[in-house]
Amino acid sequence: MKLENPSQLQWQFSHRAEQMQSSAIREILKITMRPDITSFAGGLPSPATFPVEHMKTAFDRVLTQQGKVALQYGPTDGYLPLRQWVADSLSTDGAKIVPEQVLMVSGSQQGLDLLGKVLVDEGSKVLVETPSYLGALQAFALYGAQFESVPSDENGLLPETLDGIAQGARMLYSLPNFQNPTGRTLPLERRIKLVETCARLGLPLIEDDPYGALSYRNAPLQKMLTMNPSGVIYMGSFSKVLTPGIRLGYVVAPTPLIQKMEQAKQATDLHTAQLTQMVVYEAIKDGFLEQHVPTIRKLYGDQCEAMLGALQDFFPAGCSWSKPEGGMFVWVTLPKQIDTGTLLAEAVEKIKVAFVPGAPFFANTPERNTMRLSFVTVPPAQIRVGIEALGKLIASKL
Amino acid sequence: MKLENPSQLQWQFSHRAEQMQSSAIREILKITMRPDITSFAGGLPSPATFPVEHMKTAFDRVLTQQGKVALQYGPTDGYLPLRQWVADSLSTDGAKIVPEQVLMVSGSQQGLDLLGKVLVDEGSKVLVETPSYLGALQAFALYGAQFESVPSDENGLLPETLDGIAQGARMLYSLPNFQNPTGRTLPLERRIKLVETCARLGLPLIEDDPYGALSYRNAPLQKMLTMNPSGVIYMGSFSKVLTPGIRLGYVVAPTPLIQKMEQAKQATDLHTAQLTQMVVYEAIKDGFLEQHVPTIRKLYGDQCEAMLGALQDFFPAGCSWSKPEGGMFVWVTLPKQIDTGTLLAEAVEKIKVAFVPGAPFFANTPERNTMRLSFVTVPPAQIRVGIEALGKLIASKL
Repeated sequence: MKLENPSQLQWQFSHRAEQMQSSAIREILKITMRPDITSFAGGLPSPATFPVEHMKTAFDRVLTQQGKVALQYGPTDGYLPLRQWVADSLSTDGAKIVPEQVLMVSGSQQGLDLLGKVLVDEGSKVLVETPSYLGALQAFALYGAQFESVPSDENGLLPETLDGIAQGARMLYSLPNFQNPTGRTLPLERRIKLVETCARLGLPLIEDDPYGALSYRNAPLQKMLTMNPSGVIYMGSFSKVLTPGIRLGYVVAPTPLIQKMEQAKQATDLHTAQLTQMVVYEAIKDGFLEQHVPTIRKLYGDQCEAMLGALQDFFPAGCSWSKPEGGMFVWVTLPKQIDTGTLLAEAVEKIKVAFVPGAPFFANTPERNTMRLSFVTVPPAQIRVGIEALGKLIASKL
Repeated sequence: MKLENPSQLQWQFSHRAEQMQSSAIREILKITMRPDITSFAGGLPSPATFPVEHMKTAFDRVLTQQGKVALQYGPTDGYLPLRQWVADSLSTDGAKIVPEQVLMVSGSQQGLDLLGKVLVDEGSKVLVETPSYLGALQAFALYGAQFESVPSDENGLLPETLDGIAQGARMLYSLPNFQNPTGRTLPLERRIKLVETCARLGLPLIEDDPYGALSYRNAPLQKMLTMNPSGVIYMGSFSKVLTPGIRLGYVVAPTPLIQKMEQAKQATDLHTAQLTQMVVYEAIKDGFLEQHVPTIRKLYGDQCEAMLGALQDFFPAGCSWSKPEGGMFVWVTLPKQIDTGTLLAEAVEKIKVAFVPGAPFFANTPERNTMRLSFVTVPPAQIRVGIEALGKLIASKL
């Protein structure tokens, strides 16, 4: 049976769906996947860093030794040995984290979605950096967050501004290490001040840390989680240190919040793939990351240096940029008259170079003369060629 | 640095989080995982059906041949060859489904979450069967759904009752094949009537079909999707025909809705694991399911027969139950004076038998004298022993 001449449905979407827009970044990515484009637009790690053989061995071992368990439904909170590993790895600087504080999630983005689900009502105030990670803005916006941008400078947010704006806020979302999109790092003294201020104000402090392990030269700064585990919600990911395509991350938080997030996750996707969690545990339990991550740091560090050098050599006067000490991104501020949204279309067409315009990363007032450049998937020589061409295009606008 | 004597945060959860309750079923499952319990409570497929070696080969092949692609971020809508496979497999009975109508999701439960996200506002009316799948009720409730239970009988919902109650509803959620929790199947004539009525009323019709392939004897009835692809939203899963622990399902819907769901998924978890999708495609592309699924049908069919026989032999007069022709569940109605919630505690303690009380599956008025029994993970002999003990316990209450 087949319905004759059915009429098209008039969709009545939810209020939140009506307001959704496709991520500007992912739309651009679709264009810039063309092989003739030099893309500084991606947020993707370099596939050169993926330990394919090591993962293959881990999959084989888990499926051989525990296949029936790995392929069955699993607990919502996650695979206990991996939660224990996460808890142990974060028990530094005198802090003691236990597995009950750890929820495994299907990538950090899901951690953001679950945070929005359990903490944000329509109209809830959420504090974010200026600028902030677009994926977090999108996740929280779906639950009706009203963003307040915390004043920030080249070292990140300014804790002393919080007293005036935190009243009634549900949380403060921060990305202290090699932030996406700016590449900047919050200094230790600001972390201390931020943790103290949030504790005094009773404000949950989110510490999103996907890039923390990718510090090129220096030892990482102390995690805010370890300064106050009862007031900080920490988010980590295996995407940047192992591989992103498996979708695995974790949230560490005080148990009242973790329990709510676990309930929300149950209704959201039941649990994160048991097989994936067992394989990642198998892959890392004997210290693999300690040998592997330095190779990522070296690769990205060299390419970051190439980009910073090229910017110095080829970008015209009036441009400034961040000097990241880790992570994947450089943030560039052009002279005020240049709108990078317009510039992108021209760059892709004329010089086959892509980047991400900065405007979507601002929760409130966009600075349209900004751009995010990723250096991780482009070899140094090609970085120089691309940046030179982009510098000339910018100079032609001045 | 460590904060001295931090005060505990006073959590202010979202309205939806305040209302969440942990799934009664999963809480019970935690108790009934004890090996001394005969559990009819699970919703888990039998691990005996998991094709571990076949999956191992597929993982090995994908990682060997396309490791770098499989471990990288992927597109939000999913892996195209698999979406094409889904579209082809559903293009039956004269319907033509295209990959643009297919969104890959991290298990069917995520499909439910995304549907709630894009179709349900606080207070939106959502029509459901009586009783209905608990996971759907939980997913939609998080977005503020107000449920209206559609009158249903032992063959499922009654399409002729819709005119009176559909006004203003955002969708009708149905599970036509071997429903969870009742095991009942919607007859063909009711499917036709339902599709026609929903099309006339402009009401989106959800066809959730995780068990459709598990028909023990007869050819499956025509899918409602194929009767009207422009008005039906179909949800499928690899959990029951391949393995659940990998978390992979799909939603098929008209493109305006799929596009909204894709945007919502982007903010929810970016995309479903690329590796998983490539491996499942590798595992099934040459017709594996056509040999494999009959072995699941045989196992479950035999165990279903054992349970129906045992119920006939051992349950006292005044009890009635469904006669499923596929799927995983039998639904039992006891004499009115028995509350299965109370009975469960006693059954676990005294006779070490577990089941799921029926009340949580009712969106509105619960029938407390009902229970769901799963027969798929217990061998026939143990089924008989467990059902005999349960029958005696019930008889002792009458």
